[in-house]
Amino acid sequence: MKYTKTFYQIKSNEEIFSKIKEETKTIGYYNLPFVDTTPIKEFAKTVKQKDIVIIGIGGSSLGTYAIHQFLQNKENDKKLHFLESTDPLDIQRRVKKIDFKNALFIIISKSGTTIEVVSIVKYLHSIISLDKSNTIVITEHDSKLNSYAKANSMKTFEIPKDVGGRFSVFSNVGLVPLAIMGLDIDMLLKGCQDIHNDFFEKKETYSKLMEKARFIVENKNRFNINVLFSYSASLEGFNKWYVQLWGESLGKININGTKQVLTPIGLIGPVDQHSFLQLIMEGRRDKTVTFIKISEFEDSLTIPDITLPFLDELDYINDVKFKDLINYQADSTIKAIEDLKDVPTDTITMKSQDEYSISKLMYKYQLLTSIVGSFVQINTYDQPGVEAGKIILKNSLKELKK
Amino acid sequence: MKYTKTFYQIKSNEEIFSKIKEETKTIGYYNLPFVDTTPIKEFAKTVKQKDIVIIGIGGSSLGTYAIHQFLQNKENDKKLHFLESTDPLDIQRRVKKIDFKNALFIIISKSGTTIEVVSIVKYLHSIISLDKSNTIVITEHDSKLNSYAKANSMKTFEIPKDVGGRFSVFSNVGLVPLAIMGLDIDMLLKGCQDIHNDFFEKKETYSKLMEKARFIVENKNRFNINVLFSYSASLEGFNKWYVQLWGESLGKININGTKQVLTPIGLIGPVDQHSFLQLIMEGRRDKTVTFIKISEFEDSLTIPDITLPFLDELDYINDVKFKDLINYQADSTIKAIEDLKDVPTDTITMKSQDEYSISKLMYKYQLLTSIVGSFVQINTYDQPGVEAGKIILKNSLKELKK
Repeated sequence: MKYTKTFYQIKSNEEIFSKIKEETKTIGYYNLPFVDTTPIKEFAKTVKQKDIVIIGIGGSSLGTYAIHQFLQNKENDKKLHFLESTDPLDIQRRVKKIDFKNALFIIISKSGTTIEVVSIVKYLHSIISLDKSNTIVITEHDSKLNSYAKANSMKTFEIPKDVGGRFSVFSNVGLVPLAIMGLDIDMLLKGCQDIHNDFFEKKETYSKLMEKARFIVENKNRFNINVLFSYSASLEGFNKWYVQLWGESLGKININGTKQVLTPIGLIGPVDQHSFLQLIMEGRRDKTVTFIKISEFEDSLTIPDITLPFLDELDYINDVKFKDLINYQADSTIKAIEDLKDVPTDTITMKSQDEYSISKLMYKYQLLTSIVGSFVQINTYDQPGVEAGKIILKNSLKELKK
Repeated sequence: MKYTKTFYQIKSNEEIFSKIKEETKTIGYYNLPFVDTTPIKEFAKTVKQKDIVIIGIGGSSLGTYAIHQFLQNKENDKKLHFLESTDPLDIQRRVKKIDFKNALFIIISKSGTTIEVVSIVKYLHSIISLDKSNTIVITEHDSKLNSYAKANSMKTFEIPKDVGGRFSVFSNVGLVPLAIMGLDIDMLLKGCQDIHNDFFEKKETYSKLMEKARFIVENKNRFNINVLFSYSASLEGFNKWYVQLWGESLGKININGTKQVLTPIGLIGPVDQHSFLQLIMEGRRDKTVTFIKISEFEDSLTIPDITLPFLDELDYINDVKFKDLINYQADSTIKAIEDLKDVPTDTITMKSQDEYSISKLMYKYQLLTSIVGSFVQINTYDQPGVEAGKIILKNSLKELKK
């Protein structure tokens, strides 16, 4: 077949692997697992405040929130707050919960000029003086926010220029606040390292991710929706992080000028069994479904052996541990969908609720995103589509001042 | 064209309207706005407890949560808790926040034998004795849960047999807890009544909903994803309610045996501008986007007139009210998407954050769902697709006891 040089064609696994290896030289996230964490840990030890307040949006907060929510039970007694929305009632509701005299503010913005972040920083300034005693800044080396921090002698941590927002959770963006919250950031990086090595040594991670990416890409016009069905309330943040990672990386026009198509949806079991499941079961076959299960919840909460009058038909749930119940629920949903035979599914089982498991999962998803992006021949790491709205906003706000 | 009697064909607006009118005789939700609320209000006045705990999942909690979250600022000083997940850590985290000596438990289940609900009720029984002094029950008249309540002399409220879970927010399911929280439930019903009358008198609501439904249905194979982009943090609950309503009602096999296809996604602006927007802008044209804005937030929080060193280029946001900023963000995103010319959009503007506005919106969405369901010739009100998983779960749990 005759075709122009840029015409889209699915490449071989070998070609994709070479491309990914090539990317590790210019795309920063691949190398984050091997960074020395000593400065972060040293700093974290010095933090005395009890309320830790992250001011950041999108890639500056989603990954941190995901890990924090998943590992809440392992954190120290500090409280982590997130300020990101410009919804006035939401800001006030969140601000009300902060003890300003005992708070550390962490301003996070890659560009340093994110409207939401600067708006909230200005608002906080009207309540308390943000200075080096209560504020640190995480941003790019040559951003204006960095100059602002230096002018105020605030402690700063850098976001490498070649690490994009949605791939930044294992940079200072995520590690600094998570270390302050008492989590083991070396264990987080260990999970990433193990996946990284396993992939680049072409072991199990390589075969699994290549197979999955290839399936998704070869069937992308038939299954244009990728559902993540996570069986733990603590994975809601992870779902949101995945939606950003997948949507913003893969919603692109490829080298052939074709608009790409993979739409991510995050669901939480068992709650969404009572909502979205009907659509998966009987709706059009336009979805792949990935289940995530935790094999060992660190918990033994049990349904007591009580018979309730008139409800004795449900006595078969007595003495069942909740952690087993939720996994039985997952397995039943998986079985029901598998029985359909025409909805592609896979299941990821996390070993436990710890740093190592969550970072393995997240790093794997970053790699999968890169591989899929490589297959469909787009730039996985930019986001040109969000600029138009930003320019319109800036112009209409500037218009106000005339 | 020759076709079998059941072959799918898009009907006229008149035919659909007759069908909907016919439905009002057998589908209960249409008539909920006209029910006498006196018994609910009388009961709500007698509730002395401060912690109100809803034990319910899916249709038994999503609508209540949506209205509660939207109107938090109008509620009294009671605290509303939701227990629904079987995630053991999640249950314990939520239970820890309840003052058991000062709590009213509201058990909500239409069938009365929902595994999640009964599991949690049994667990609560192991902490405190649930009895008529601290527990009420909302269920169907002839459910086993109703017999349980009667056996314990607990106060009960009924869920009409002809009102399905996802259409039940304006029945006792939603009204009882919301009245206890101090919200004006008559104003909630007033919003529904006005939409109901406007629709059935074929005024503006009729033309708008018919036009929208027809567009969605006629283009459902091209635009199989319906995105709701809500510009207020307080609409996250509403989004979830919408996802259940739309997905569970419309994800069906129609009379012609064809799997129907409309997939709902809920987004929150401005946060998701930093996540999903790229995909809408440059991804395949498989989405319609509906924006929801609140024209008057009851709030005047303002970005102070402060110049931050090195960040003075952003001084154009000074003195802007946050409620205006969020609407400028909405308008900019709307403009950017409209400029694409090939992504269908519409905008719903809510007047303010009050009972009347939210119930109008929700009742309109219920009607829209019924109309779309009627157009695609499915049963909008059942959910046969979720039964398979439930049976598998029941069998594997029973297996354990052998």
